[in-house]
Amino acid sequence: MGAWDRAFHIMAKVKVGLPQGTRDFSAETVRKRNYIFITIRTVFELYGYQPLETPAMENLDTLMGKYGEEGDKLIFKILNNGLDRTEKHLKAKEDFEKVLEGKNVDGITERALRYDLTIPFARYVAMNHGQLTYPFKRYQIQPVWRADRPQKGRYREFYQCDADVVGSTSLLNEVELVSIYATAFEKLGVGVDIKINNRKILGALAELCGGADKMVDITVAIDKLDKIGIDKVKVELLERGLTEEQVSIIEQYLAIDGSNDQKRAKLAALIGHIEIGKKGIEELTYIYEFFNPESSIVNSETLDPTYVSLTIPDSRFTIDDSRFTIHAPLVFDFTLARGLNYYTGTILEVKARNVQMGSIGGGGRYDDLTGLFGVPNLPGVGVSFGVDRIYDVMEELKLFPEDVQVGTQVLFFNLGEAESRAAFGLMQQLRNKGIRSEIYPEAAKFDKQFKYADKKNIPYIIILGAQELEDGTCAVKDLKKGQQETVSQARLVNYPFKF
Amino acid sequence: MGAWDRAFHIMAKVKVGLPQGTRDFSAETVRKRNYIFITIRTVFELYGYQPLETPAMENLDTLMGKYGEEGDKLIFKILNNGLDRTEKHLKAKEDFEKVLEGKNVDGITERALRYDLTIPFARYVAMNHGQLTYPFKRYQIQPVWRADRPQKGRYREFYQCDADVVGSTSLLNEVELVSIYATAFEKLGVGVDIKINNRKILGALAELCGGADKMVDITVAIDKLDKIGIDKVKVELLERGLTEEQVSIIEQYLAIDGSNDQKRAKLAALIGHIEIGKKGIEELTYIYEFFNPESSIVNSETLDPTYVSLTIPDSRFTIDDSRFTIHAPLVFDFTLARGLNYYTGTILEVKARNVQMGSIGGGGRYDDLTGLFGVPNLPGVGVSFGVDRIYDVMEELKLFPEDVQVGTQVLFFNLGEAESRAAFGLMQQLRNKGIRSEIYPEAAKFDKQFKYADKKNIPYIIILGAQELEDGTCAVKDLKKGQQETVSQARLVNYPFKF
Repeated sequence: MGAWDRAFHIMAKVKVGLPQGTRDFSAETVRKRNYIFITIRTVFELYGYQPLETPAMENLDTLMGKYGEEGDKLIFKILNNGLDRTEKHLKAKEDFEKVLEGKNVDGITERALRYDLTIPFARYVAMNHGQLTYPFKRYQIQPVWRADRPQKGRYREFYQCDADVVGSTSLLNEVELVSIYATAFEKLGVGVDIKINNRKILGALAELCGGADKMVDITVAIDKLDKIGIDKVKVELLERGLTEEQVSIIEQYLAIDGSNDQKRAKLAALIGHIEIGKKGIEELTYIYEFFNPESSIVNSETLDPTYVSLTIPDSRFTIDDSRFTIHAPLVFDFTLARGLNYYTGTILEVKARNVQMGSIGGGGRYDDLTGLFGVPNLPGVGVSFGVDRIYDVMEELKLFPEDVQVGTQVLFFNLGEAESRAAFGLMQQLRNKGIRSEIYPEAAKFDKQFKYADKKNIPYIIILGAQELEDGTCAVKDLKKGQQETVSQARLVNYPFKF
Repeated sequence: MGAWDRAFHIMAKVKVGLPQGTRDFSAETVRKRNYIFITIRTVFELYGYQPLETPAMENLDTLMGKYGEEGDKLIFKILNNGLDRTEKHLKAKEDFEKVLEGKNVDGITERALRYDLTIPFARYVAMNHGQLTYPFKRYQIQPVWRADRPQKGRYREFYQCDADVVGSTSLLNEVELVSIYATAFEKLGVGVDIKINNRKILGALAELCGGADKMVDITVAIDKLDKIGIDKVKVELLERGLTEEQVSIIEQYLAIDGSNDQKRAKLAALIGHIEIGKKGIEELTYIYEFFNPESSIVNSETLDPTYVSLTIPDSRFTIDDSRFTIHAPLVFDFTLARGLNYYTGTILEVKARNVQMGSIGGGGRYDDLTGLFGVPNLPGVGVSFGVDRIYDVMEELKLFPEDVQVGTQVLFFNLGEAESRAAFGLMQQLRNKGIRSEIYPEAAKFDKQFKYADKKNIPYIIILGAQELEDGTCAVKDLKKGQQETVSQARLVNYPFKF
C-alpha cells in the first residue's frame, strides 16, 4: 500500500494538545453530564417547554454590542474563509488595515461563536416572529464559547441550559419556573435554596435613595455584598456619590433578616409606601402563595427557610392531593441583584446547600427580549442551569447514581474461533434484551481479558471455552461478588443479571 | 427603569439573519433528530462502545494538513482573541504581514473548528495513549464545521456520528460494526443494503493492472462509477495512463454481478491467484459467514440480496435461538472504493432502499490512526452514520413514529384566578406521573386557548371553570376524537389518557 502511505503520511508529526480552556470528556464524564442534561430536559418537557437548537456561529452583527464592552472582547470571531493562506491575502490585508483605522471589519471576520443562548434565542424569535405561537416556551441546551482567561471552574467552552417563555406577562410563568427549579434539583438529589427578589423592590430602594438614576450604582454595589462584605459595599456606595443618609437606608435594607414573613414585614415598612415597591412585594407574594394556597405568606413550615429540613423523599416527589409541595425552600433574599442585566421584575438564584459554591442557577423577568432585533415589546421570563457547577456539586456530595457510570454490562471472553462464534450468538440474544455486551475481539490470554473487564468496570464476564462448547454451557462470573456459576447456553438469555 | 433602558438599549437595530449554510432547528426537528441520535447511541452502547466528546475548537496545527489541500481551505479558523478592535492591532498587523510572506500565522489564528470527528479522536488517543484500555472502543456524536459552498443537503454545520475501535486487528470488530449498522437501521425502520468490499481486493486489481502505484488512479476512477457511468470511467482510466488491456481487466472486474456467491466466484477467478487478493476475499468471507454460521458463503436466503425481501418484523428483532439474523442484506460490491482516504482493509457503505439518496453510512479499516500524532502502529476500524441524510430518508418515507412529535400532552385552560390555582394543583399531579402538561398562563378567551392547543398539537385539554370548581370536577377533552368527558378532580390523575 505504498501509494496510500505516500498520499497520507507526508505531513510531519505535530505536538498534540488542546486549546487552552477546553476539555475532552471521556466516557464517565459524558455519562454523568448526560444524566444532568437528561434530567433537566425531562423537567423542561414536563412543563411544556419545547426544544430549540441554534447554530454555533452567528453573524458578528447579531452578537456585537449585546454584552457590553468587556463581553465584546470575549467573543470568539471566525476568520473569513480563505483568509490565511490563499490568494485573497492582499484583499484581506487592505481590509485589515481598514480595521486598524477603525473601519469596516467585513473583510476579516463576519461570523462569531455564540457567547450565550439568550441572544441567539432573541434573534430566532425576531426572525420567526410571525410563525411562532405565543406564549412561546422554549428550552435550549447547547455549548457557548468565551475567550475568558481560563481558571479553575472557568472554561472557554461550556454548556448553558436555558428555559424561557416570551409573550406573556402572567406571574404564573414565574410560578412554573420556580417549580421547574425545585423539581429538577429534587430529581438530581441536590439540596438547594431558591432565592427570589424583584427588580421593582430594588427600584423602590433606589427611589428612596434619591431617584431611579441611582439604580445601577446601587445594584452593582449590592451585587458584590457576598464577595466583599457590607463595609466595603458602603464605601463603594459613598464613592459612587450616595450620601451617608442614603447609604444608611441601604444598610437597613440589606440587614433585613428573619423568616420570609418577618423579612416581608420589615421590607414593607421600609419601601411599602412607594408605588413600585408595593408592586414588587405583591408580585413576590403572589408567587410565594402559589406554593402555599391555604395560608397567606406566614405560617409555612414547608417554605420558611428557618424551619425547612431538606429531605429528599424516596419517591422523589411528594403530592399532597390537589396541592404540590416543593421541598426546596423559596427564600426571600432582598440582597439578590443579579448583576448588570436586563431584568425588570422577578429575579431568581439557586444556591446549593452543604457545599461551597457560587449560584448554580439564575434567571428573571425582562420587558423586551427582541427590541434590538426589530420586534419590540415582547416580555418574557427565563431561568438558566449552571451545568458545570451542578456537576461539581454532585461530584463533591457523591450524588450521581452508581448505575450512571456503568457502560458495558457483560463481557464475553474470546477463547478461540469456534468458541467466539458460539459466544457471538449468545451475545446477540443479550443485546436484543437491551443488555450492553461485548466480546473481547482477540483470543488473548485470560489475564489480559480479565484486566480489560476490570479497567472498563464491567460487572459480569461470561466464559465459553472448549469444554463449555461441548457441554452447551457457559460460566457466568459476577466480578463484584467474585462468584461463578455454570449456566446452560439456552438459559443464559434469562439469567438474572443484577445491574 | 430609565437607567436600564439607557444601559441596554443604546445599540442600533441590526438586520437579523443566520450565517449562510447554518440552520435553526425548531422543536419538531430537534425531536426527530434526537430520535435518530438516541437510537444510534443506544445501539453503540449495546455493543460496548463508550462515549467521547471533544471540544469544538482544536489547535490549528492539529487540523491543518490532514484533509488535503482542498480540506485545509474548508477549515474554519478562529481569529485570535482581541485581534479586531483592541490595542493588539499593531502586533497583529506585523504578524499578518508575516503571513503574507508565507511565515508564521500564530499572530492571527491558532485555533480552528473541528472539520470531522476522526482527527480529534486520533489527537485524543495520542494524548491519552498511556491511560487508555485497548482495544479502545469509542463513539462520538457531535457537530462539525466546513466552509463548503452551501447547497441543497450540504451545510456548514452538521452532525457526525462515528464509532471506532482502535488497537485490534481482529475481524470480529468488522462483524460487530456490520451488526451495528443492521441493528440501528432496523430500529429506525430504514430498509438498507450494507455494501462491503476490501481495499486488499482493490490492491490486487491494481497489481493485476501494472502495479500498486496504479491504486490511487484506479480507486479515484472507480469511485465515480455511480455518478459518471462505465464509459466515462474507462476514458478517465485511459487518461490516467492505463493501457487498453488494463482498462479491459478493470471493466471485467466492475461488471462482476449476480448473487454474493456468484460474485465471489467470479472475483476469485479474476484475482484469487494474487496473494493480497486472496487475503481480501478471505476477510470478506470471514465476516460474511459470521452471519451465516451453518452454511458456507452460498445458499443463504437471508443474506443474498437476490432473495432478500426486507420486511421489518413486528418485534424489530428476530432471534433464531443461538443465531442472530440480520435483516439488512450484506451485499458484496466490488465497485465500492470509498474515495481517497486511509482505509486499508474492509470498507463499508450503507444505501437506503426505496429512495434516491447517496450513501447514508460508511466506514472501514485503517492501519495507523495516530501515527501523525506520534503514536505509530495503532490499527482500527470504524463506521459513520450520515444523520442529515438519514433524516431526509425518514422524512421522505414517513418513518418517524407519530409520538416523536408530541410535545405537551395536556393543556389546562386558564379560566380565572381561583380556577387556575386549582388547575395548577391537578397539573402537578399529572406531571408527577410523567405527563407533559402546561397551563395557559393568562385567563384569555376560550378561542385563543383552543388555538394555542391546536397550533402546539396538544392532544388533550382540561377545562376547569367556575362550575367545575364548585362541583369538584373538570372536563377532559380529547381533541383528536372531539370527545369530552366530565371527571372528578380527585380521579383526574388516574384518567386513561391515550398518547
